[in-house]
This record gives sequence, C-alpha cells and structure tokens, in this order.
Amino acid sequence: MITSTANGKVKRLINLKKKRKLRDEEHVFLVEGIRMFREVPVDELQEVYVSESFYKKEKVLVNAIAGQAGVHIEVLTDTVFAHASDTKTPQGVLCVVRQKSYKLEDLLKGEKRHLLVLDNLQDPGNMGTIVRTAEGAGVTGVIMSRDCVDIYNPKTIRSTMGSIYRMPFYYAEDILKAIHKIKDAGIKVYAAHLDGEKSYDEEDYAFSCAFLIGNEGNGLREETSKMADHYIIIPMSGEVESLNAAIAASVLMFEVKRQRRNTEKNS
Amino acid sequence: MITSTANGKVKRLINLKKKRKLRDEEHVFLVEGIRMFREVPVDELQEVYVSESFYKKEKVLVNAIAGQAGVHIEVLTDTVFAHASDTKTPQGVLCVVRQKSYKLEDLLKGEKRHLLVLDNLQDPGNMGTIVRTAEGAGVTGVIMSRDCVDIYNPKTIRSTMGSIYRMPFYYAEDILKAIHKIKDAGIKVYAAHLDGEKSYDEEDYAFSCAFLIGNEGNGLREETSKMADHYIIIPMSGEVESLNAAIAASVLMFEVKRQRRNTEKNS
Repeated sequence: MITSTANGKVKRLINLKKKRKLRDEEHVFLVEGIRMFREVPVDELQEVYVSESFYKKEKVLVNAIAGQAGVHIEVLTDTVFAHASDTKTPQGVLCVVRQKSYKLEDLLKGEKRHLLVLDNLQDPGNMGTIVRTAEGAGVTGVIMSRDCVDIYNPKTIRSTMGSIYRMPFYYAEDILKAIHKIKDAGIKVYAAHLDGEKSYDEEDYAFSCAFLIGNEGNGLREETSKMADHYIIIPMSGEVESLNAAIAASVLMFEVKRQRRNTEKNS
Repeated sequence: MITSTANGKVKRLINLKKKRKLRDEEHVFLVEGIRMFREVPVDELQEVYVSESFYKKEKVLVNAIAGQAGVHIEVLTDTVFAHASDTKTPQGVLCVVRQKSYKLEDLLKGEKRHLLVLDNLQDPGNMGTIVRTAEGAGVTGVIMSRDCVDIYNPKTIRSTMGSIYRMPFYYAEDILKAIHKIKDAGIKVYAAHLDGEKSYDEEDYAFSCAFLIGNEGNGLREETSKMADHYIIIPMSGEVESLNAAIAASVLMFEVKRQRRNTEKNS
C-alpha cells in the first residue's frame, strides 16, 4: 500500500493530471470515479489506483475489471488518494487509460456523416458537455483546432460521462486545411453566423454535414467561418445576442437528429 | 477612496457575495463587470463600486450611469477591489442592484406561455445558462423549487449574461402546488421521462406549455414528474442515458420556438 504523497507513482499521477504534454508523451489520460471506471474499455486500461476504503467496499468489481485487463491494482491510503485525486470528494478509484488515435480520414468516411468542428474552444466543462451531447445526438466525429482545450483535461473527461471512450475525435494542426478536407469529402459545412440568411432549421441535413463552433467569448474566427458553405442563424428572442457554445452546438446537433429521424420514419 | 479591506462597505459586499440570506433580507444582489453594469436598469441600481484604474479609464460611462440612477460612486484601490470581487481577473466595476419580485400569477397570465419549471437544480452555472438560453428561446417565465440554487448567486448572475434583468422568475415554496396552479391556468405540463411514449418533437407546443427540468445528478423527483400531463423523451444515440440539465432544457425550449416560428410563417 502506498502511504506517502512523496511516492513516485503518486507524483506521476499528479503530473498526468496537470500536464497535457506529459499525457500526450505517454499517450495516456486519467479517469476518475466508479462510473468512468466501469465503462473503461478493458484493452485500453493500463493502471488502476484505489483508496483503501473504496477497495474494501468494491473489491469484487475492482478485481474483476483489473483482472480482465491484466493490470496490477495499486492501493493508496485514503489521504494519499485524496491528494492524487482531481475532485473534492473523491470516490476512490482512478485509472490510467491509453489514448485513442483517430485519423481525420476515418472521420470523413461513410454516409450521413455528422461532424462538429470546434475552433479554439477553451472551457473544459463545455468541451466535455459537447462530447457527451454529441454522442447522444448521433454525431459521428468531433474535429478540434490545435488550440482547443485538451479533450483529456480531467474536468473534460468527467463532463463527457463516458462518451470520451466512444466519440471519434481529431486534433487538427491546421484547422483550415482540415475543413478543406471535410469539404473535399463532399460534406457540407455550416457556420452559425450573424450574416446567415436561413434559420438553422430551414436547411436540409439528410446528407453529410459539419458544423463550425467557435470560442466561448469571441465566437468563430473570421478565417474559419469564411470556410463555411452556408451561414445559418439561430433566431433569438429578447436581447440575447448569442448562446453559450455548448448550447448552440446542442440546438444544431439535435435539429440534425430530428430531421434524420423524421426522414427514416417517413421512408 | 476606500483603501482597506477592513472597511465596513467592503465587508458588506463580501457578505452579500457569499450569503443568500443577507441578499434576500436586503432584497438586493451583486453584479460585476462592464457588460452587466451597462445593462443594469437604472431604477434598480442602488450602489456602484469601481476600482481606481477602472474609474480612470471609464469615468464618462460610470458617471453617466450612476448619475442617471442618482447613486453615489465609491472608488476602491485596485487591491481592495480585487478582494471584494468574485472573479480572478476583476474588470473593476461591481454594483448592488435591487431584486425584482414577480408573482406566480403574473407568469401564468396571457397567451402562448412558455414556462420552465426547475426542480432542485443545484449548479449555479447551469442555472445561469438556462436563464440566458430561456430568454433567447422566448421562454416567458422560469419557476423554481425553493431548494434550487439561488438565482442571485454571483456565478449564476454572470452566466445569465444580463438575462437576469429581463426574465421573469418565481421561487415556489411548494413546487407541487405551483405546478397545480400552472395546470389550473390551462398550461400543459411536460416532463422528459424514460416512460415517455412520444418524442419531444411529436408534441404540439402551439398553446401554452411548461417543461419540468430536474436536478443535474438525479433528474426529476418522482412526485414532481408525476404532476406532468405528458411524458416525452429526447431520443438518444449511442450509450448516452441522459443529457446535462441545461442541454436538455435547451433542446426542448428551441423545439417550442421552432414550432411557433413555423406556425407564424404559415399563418
């Protein structure tokens, strides 16, 4: 049992929690909590850390998952675990999981693609909520500019509620080039924009489509929004000028899902 | 100029920031930042506090708004201001604003009501985002159970982006009684619920309607959801079981707005 916060493994966990660079170098990320632990794909699980009291309570579950994955279980005193944890009231389980890597080409292949393109999104919670909502809305992939917040940020991971394991995503070094490739693949690109003529629900999303979503404070960068095939608007009541990025994305995603569901019903 | 954090006015600001009870007793709330300051209705503005450097830069604006409202401007050194502020990088303006009070009856009057009923919502950011989105979606009023987070929480206020000044709302001591009154007013009550038969977009929201939105972690309390006239579902892809409360509310609100906009266009 690890009883000291000075232990090398504990220090490494804390560094993995804080440092995107280290996560990317080791090609791993951290997940915390029982729900995220239950859902982890066993062939991606690399290390398991539990608090003493959690292990006492959930020995059967922990042994089963770690056994299947063939990984060693490391037990920490509750105090040391709390030190390594990213949450105020830790549940008592933390694991190191292998990062997935997707190619842009894989995200563009197939029919009825439904993509989100995130441009300089900064809020970790927003990012996680978008990934979670995207899975629920049937989005087939998320493409991010290199300067977006890290999708493996612990707060983002938590907000995805497990969707991180399942949603294909890709960080583009050059987001404009990536959008070019999306268009070359025959996918229509939409941007919510004040100059939009049609309301978002007046477009037809039966075929492959992608939506550009901008930064929380500043919206889309001009050079990014210029790449869109169509500008659309989300008509607004009152004196509201814009919606939160995650909310705007959700309204658009669920309109696509609504249209496609209705088309399927009628066909 | 106030130069000490021990100053009584500064202490009062900090108490107002932290304590719902004090805000409710004095019937006021705090707003921070230039945007929220610009939009404050002058007859509700009670006190204005600025940092020395903000006042230097924005004297004309501050004097104009405070002058119109007939309130005194209190200048604080930048250090003292930072102490009173709720944000890490304060903009330099903070004001005390009178709370509004709405009656439930006022929220139920009129045609084509579009209400949200929030049951034990706990996250201040979620609450603010919902209020902001609600204004954008044409919601006519928000009704909250007494155990919801305080709508005057500084984080909530910030997330509303000014919608707090314009959205009518009401805290119900007894949320079940309030829902009874909503129904008695002829307003149809919907709840997103796993037992729902129809998808949310298959209902007709042309007439007055209200949506019950539950707690972030636990959803709607059973006794609350039982009050609904209709259960609806938001069909989900992948392995997602539920959406974040603010996202679910947004999808529903914008479906109402979409339907009503289309009805107007076709009539």
